[in-house]
Amino acid sequence: MAKKLNVGLIGSGFMGKAHSIAYATIPTLFPDAAAHPHRYIVADVNDELSKEAAAHFGFDKWTSNWKDLINDDSVDVIDIVTPNFVHKEMAIAAAEAGKHVFCEKPLALNKQESKEVYEAAKKAGIKTGMGFNYRKSQALAFAKKLIDQGKIGTVYGFRGMYLNDWAKDPETPLSWRFEKNKAGSGVIGDQCTHVMDMARYLLGEIDRVSAWTKTLLKERPKPTAAFDDLGKKPSGGSSDMAPVDVDDACGILVEFNSGVMGVLESSRFATGRGNHIFFEINGSKGSIRFDWERNNELWYASNDDEFEERGYRRIIMGPAHPNGDAFWPIAGINTGYAEATAINLKDFLDAVVDGGDVDPNFEDGWRIEEIVDAALRSNESGKWEKCHE
Amino acid sequence: MAKKLNVGLIGSGFMGKAHSIAYATIPTLFPDAAAHPHRYIVADVNDELSKEAAAHFGFDKWTSNWKDLINDDSVDVIDIVTPNFVHKEMAIAAAEAGKHVFCEKPLALNKQESKEVYEAAKKAGIKTGMGFNYRKSQALAFAKKLIDQGKIGTVYGFRGMYLNDWAKDPETPLSWRFEKNKAGSGVIGDQCTHVMDMARYLLGEIDRVSAWTKTLLKERPKPTAAFDDLGKKPSGGSSDMAPVDVDDACGILVEFNSGVMGVLESSRFATGRGNHIFFEINGSKGSIRFDWERNNELWYASNDDEFEERGYRRIIMGPAHPNGDAFWPIAGINTGYAEATAINLKDFLDAVVDGGDVDPNFEDGWRIEEIVDAALRSNESGKWEKCHE
Amino acid sequence: MAKKLNVGLIGSGFMGKAHSIAYATIPTLFPDAAAHPHRYIVADVNDELSKEAAAHFGFDKWTSNWKDLINDDSVDVIDIVTPNFVHKEMAIAAAEAGKHVFCEKPLALNKQESKEVYEAAKKAGIKTGMGFNYRKSQALAFAKKLIDQGKIGTVYGFRGMYLNDWAKDPETPLSWRFEKNKAGSGVIGDQCTHVMDMARYLLGEIDRVSAWTKTLLKERPKPTAAFDDLGKKPSGGSSDMAPVDVDDACGILVEFNSGVMGVLESSRFATGRGNHIFFEINGSKGSIRFDWERNNELWYASNDDEFEERGYRRIIMGPAHPNGDAFWPIAGINTGYAEATAINLKDFLDAVVDGGDVDPNFEDGWRIEEIVDAALRSNESGKWEKCHE
Amino acid sequence: MAKKLNVGLIGSGFMGKAHSIAYATIPTLFPDAAAHPHRYIVADVNDELSKEAAAHFGFDKWTSNWKDLINDDSVDVIDIVTPNFVHKEMAIAAAEAGKHVFCEKPLALNKQESKEVYEAAKKAGIKTGMGFNYRKSQALAFAKKLIDQGKIGTVYGFRGMYLNDWAKDPETPLSWRFEKNKAGSGVIGDQCTHVMDMARYLLGEIDRVSAWTKTLLKERPKPTAAFDDLGKKPSGGSSDMAPVDVDDACGILVEFNSGVMGVLESSRFATGRGNHIFFEINGSKGSIRFDWERNNELWYASNDDEFEERGYRRIIMGPAHPNGDAFWPIAGINTGYAEATAINLKDFLDAVVDGGDVDPNFEDGWRIEEIVDAALRSNESGKWEKCHE
Repeated sequence: MAKKLNVGLIGSGFMGKAHSIAYATIPTLFPDAAAHPHRYIVADVNDELSKEAAAHFGFDKWTSNWKDLINDDSVDVIDIVTPNFVHKEMAIAAAEAGKHVFCEKPLALNKQESKEVYEAAKKAGIKTGMGFNYRKSQALAFAKKLIDQGKIGTVYGFRGMYLNDWAKDPETPLSWRFEKNKAGSGVIGDQCTHVMDMARYLLGEIDRVSAWTKTLLKERPKPTAAFDDLGKKPSGGSSDMAPVDVDDACGILVEFNSGVMGVLESSRFATGRGNHIFFEINGSKGSIRFDWERNNELWYASNDDEFEERGYRRIIMGPAHPNGDAFWPIAGINTGYAEATAINLKDFLDAVVDGGDVDPNFEDGWRIEEIVDAALRSNESGKWEKCHE
Repeated sequence: MAKKLNVGLIGSGFMGKAHSIAYATIPTLFPDAAAHPHRYIVADVNDELSKEAAAHFGFDKWTSNWKDLINDDSVDVIDIVTPNFVHKEMAIAAAEAGKHVFCEKPLALNKQESKEVYEAAKKAGIKTGMGFNYRKSQALAFAKKLIDQGKIGTVYGFRGMYLNDWAKDPETPLSWRFEKNKAGSGVIGDQCTHVMDMARYLLGEIDRVSAWTKTLLKERPKPTAAFDDLGKKPSGGSSDMAPVDVDDACGILVEFNSGVMGVLESSRFATGRGNHIFFEINGSKGSIRFDWERNNELWYASNDDEFEERGYRRIIMGPAHPNGDAFWPIAGINTGYAEATAINLKDFLDAVVDGGDVDPNFEDGWRIEEIVDAALRSNESGKWEKCHE
Repeated sequence: MAKKLNVGLIGSGFMGKAHSIAYATIPTLFPDAAAHPHRYIVADVNDELSKEAAAHFGFDKWTSNWKDLINDDSVDVIDIVTPNFVHKEMAIAAAEAGKHVFCEKPLALNKQESKEVYEAAKKAGIKTGMGFNYRKSQALAFAKKLIDQGKIGTVYGFRGMYLNDWAKDPETPLSWRFEKNKAGSGVIGDQCTHVMDMARYLLGEIDRVSAWTKTLLKERPKPTAAFDDLGKKPSGGSSDMAPVDVDDACGILVEFNSGVMGVLESSRFATGRGNHIFFEINGSKGSIRFDWERNNELWYASNDDEFEERGYRRIIMGPAHPNGDAFWPIAGINTGYAEATAINLKDFLDAVVDGGDVDPNFEDGWRIEEIVDAALRSNESGKWEKCHE
Repeated sequence: MAKKLNVGLIGSGFMGKAHSIAYATIPTLFPDAAAHPHRYIVADVNDELSKEAAAHFGFDKWTSNWKDLINDDSVDVIDIVTPNFVHKEMAIAAAEAGKHVFCEKPLALNKQESKEVYEAAKKAGIKTGMGFNYRKSQALAFAKKLIDQGKIGTVYGFRGMYLNDWAKDPETPLSWRFEKNKAGSGVIGDQCTHVMDMARYLLGEIDRVSAWTKTLLKERPKPTAAFDDLGKKPSGGSSDMAPVDVDDACGILVEFNSGVMGVLESSRFATGRGNHIFFEINGSKGSIRFDWERNNELWYASNDDEFEERGYRRIIMGPAHPNGDAFWPIAGINTGYAEATAINLKDFLDAVVDGGDVDPNFEDGWRIEEIVDAALRSNESGKWEKCHE
């Protein structure tokens, strides 16, 4: 019998919606989970938004003061889905209030702030979770399983990229994602960190990097209101322009602690790419590759196949794969982002009840910000930079 | 402000789960819908299953007598997700009780029974919905939009298929899906009807057919318990064998009322295919094609493109496409089966409140059974057979 | 040491070019073949075309009287690459002259004429070859090998199609391919026969069919000169229109002699399709599929793979596959149509010297015309029709 | 009327065969070319190989002394297809003899030697050609056309890779490709240079790089004879091992002279990859991408398409595309490596007669070796390195 955990959600944008859907479905997808969420209270910046969020997202209560929510004794876990620049303050406050905290990525605006958050949480002894939701999909968990089973053998290389084109239109207004003081960084932190997360999940820590970053469009129309439309058809720009001070594209050479070498890349100006979160791992026994645009597939090539029958095999996710019981009884009926998000939150909530480790957690959030920082430093120095303390 | 409708769900298998997830998410996905479902009561064949269903699927109440549910004055709509052979009795009873009814496909075991159900519902003046969920996906609605906009021009042909391989293992036990008296027919009714539904949705009524059907495996192990594992790794078969008396594969030539010619096909023995619900429509101005295994993509080729730049274009579903506001703000973040199911149920519930037409409805369910019947007759007669009264 | 065979080529269009290239490369691709062709003499309808053909195609001599070529004692084999309507006369004349004959498909305009040609060749005791070149590619031979090795097991079904869009533009003039008295039939004979050939090659004879055929555009501009531009940008049409009296699309249900059921389809109005010659074979142990647009790949799915690792495998043709020594030393360097044509002609020439059987030969050409005839009859009768005497 | 040029070919391995096939087909593919090759004389290291080469490759004469060939007055052009370590000596000798020279890549073992060759050719005033054959395919020329037409707009980024797996098997013997003194470098020079060539062709010169290189397998079996089996099933290894002293994989960040940033990568240990020469170019108006494994396709996405209809378009090469008249009259009939090689050699020979520029030529060969050198230096220095003098 699952223990009910009251969730306090801060933020009501795209990710707030995603998390709310996840909370709504976890009890049915995972009836035997240790914990089941209850949508208890939600907060946004004003009454109107907060009230609407409660109505739309199925929460019992709302407040426009997030601190009330953190201090509410009925709240078991805090879930932070606000823009990046307030993550730190909220996460530390929640930790200090002794609440378990799940935070959307990035953990904070940079590695220093992220470390502060990590340490506050560690000191508080709480469970922490990070919103690297993509990696929780069936295909990624199956990739991990194949690696752990030795099917890939000695790893020979990693390539990863996250390409989309949501920012390519010059008329797309300057949302907070284009401002360093609100976003921390550009595509490297917003997108490339998902690839870093997958890389670390599958192959362990990244040791050092050599990188370039680039701002492709130097200015954008000021928005006429605060919003974050991402890939919607551009609207709401004024005729005034404002500067973009973060990166739109990046390329990164990496060396893992294991000595494995790799290449990462990201762009939000890659016309024709939707949500191409791609990686490929080559090893002595086989290879795997993945593309989120076709998130229900994992491609696997094995050197154990007969020489003339070797080739990349398209494995369609289904009931035989990780978390298969939660979803559909035939491969290819398909899940999407909602299900990956549900798995991530379920794993976090279960750990709160069970006391187990959460993966990914605030340490991962911090370590990834260290990698981002090293890449940004490398872009300045023109040299390889060590990632971690 | 959405009106709350109390749902009575009969059945707690795979589709019961899918519908429950849909009900859980509709209020968040579609905050402005006319109706929002409330999971009020669920019924299955015994107390244990019914109680568990209520717990897992988030219903307030349960009963092991589905008639109680139909006669419960608090119930606004009945949702039937039982095995095929009880659809008729339940749907007619619900209609006669004046309840609006949503029924998973097929409407009943054959065209005669389906007509009875259709007529009972018509007589009762209720709203009806059919569980052809796949066609409610973003890509299908966008396909329809392109056709309606004239982007395809005069239609030149239709090809459709539904291939998977869940039944290929001889050790897969004989579930009710392999028995004519419980399933009505085999792959033609279970799978091929989804292609027929898409064909009719996009191109209108099918007039006549010439068909073959085939049982590929004549007998299977008797199951050791009642279950329907579909594509899970086979288990639970006894050493006793029982005959399969329905079709495992079919091929169908079709002529639409419009004179357009087409080809349909289905198999559940197509090793390597996951859930390949495919169609392609060629026309004088362009073509579209779709494969459910990659349900977030619609392929479109236009003769309006420059001659040397012509080619099939892979359009990734996102916020610009039908129901885009309900889902994610960047193309390719992806939805799956749950979202298509949610759209179908939302459309039905909205019509209950708004009084609009539902599409697909029981008449569609009946018409499709007429096509199935004509194909089965054609397999016997060796001739083209008219589909409809 | 290969024996040199003098080739007499009749016709200098697209296929004459393809064959000439094949002749030019056979000695280098297959140094150890029993026979090597020598481009001895070429004929077309007038001096200008014939002379140009000799110059462009590398032949020693030319004539504008194809009978001279047939009666030339120095000529060892006759190769017929003219439009369909003269195949019969030429092939019979060549056979009667005791020359070995290779004929582009179709063998003649219909089954009766094809039988006459077949019987004339049989009576003459000559070697015959048919221009079903596509099936000679590495991937097709490898498909055959997998089937022969039992990797597919009991065959469960065949689907095949040949879709392209070269005829979709209404301004494409009426070449001989749109006239029944010159072409014999439309897409069914011109394209669908390639799929029939692959089907028969891999699975044996087709016993009976049920079919529809359709003329999608009833008239076209008369051409201002005799030409056959196929998929080039349309040009050369006059303002006068002339009727099309052959089929542009067809759909065919088939039953093989083995009892295996299948579906065939073809269209030359399938906007977006280039040269999509596709087939898929499902069996009890595995499946294979192929698409000529990616002719260097064969897809194979095996039920011998671990349950959770099953999936269609993309095998890239290379040195490990049939005729691999003739081509490149790494898979994926790629061959095209020229190489498939070279293999077909090499196999024919080798048989002339070795005395072995040729596959495909005139009997295949005739048998396929019987299938075409049965399909056209079925389109009229609305019933299944037997294919063969 | 094409001028006949007598070719002297040095080397008779895989590339000798490819060139010979090209020479055999050029007159038929390009009847209106300024020059047509005549296979006059071929040389290899001993009489047996040289004699066999003449027989197999269709050359009139042979010699086992390549200097005789260079000094033969009847020879118009020298074509060097030997292993890398003798390119320099032969190319300089040929230049000094006043012969026009085509050389397979790399031009020489490193940038210094390559410069010597380039300067010798420049001094001699001869025409030079380089065997970067892949880029001469229809799809690459069409990519260039789209860029030149402004369809891509301002370039935002380049990613390229060349992945295959021919070297992954530890039992593959140590051919000259694994020895620095014979090959110059490993995968970076053998494979990655093809991507560099495509990058430079499409986007101009590369200015600086940051790179890693890696030897993945430190030793291999000594071969029992001199051979270069590449992707064939490994054989011919002895039980003695010898060290590999070149790179098996590399990752390279690049900056073009234009300021465009990019990422290159290469591996010959990428299990599952056949001949994956891939690039993608994103720009303000559109994107293109290409994969040699499907060399008859170019993918193009345009921001001029309607917002909701945007997507990567698969354009199948055919008669409408560059050099389309040389090949087949319907898109998708397909060409392979032989045709790309033929175009490259045809372009070179035409320039010899016409006096035009050749692209690519020895300067390109040298410049690419400069990039390779900079990448190898960067691997040592850990810093960005300038590529060119």
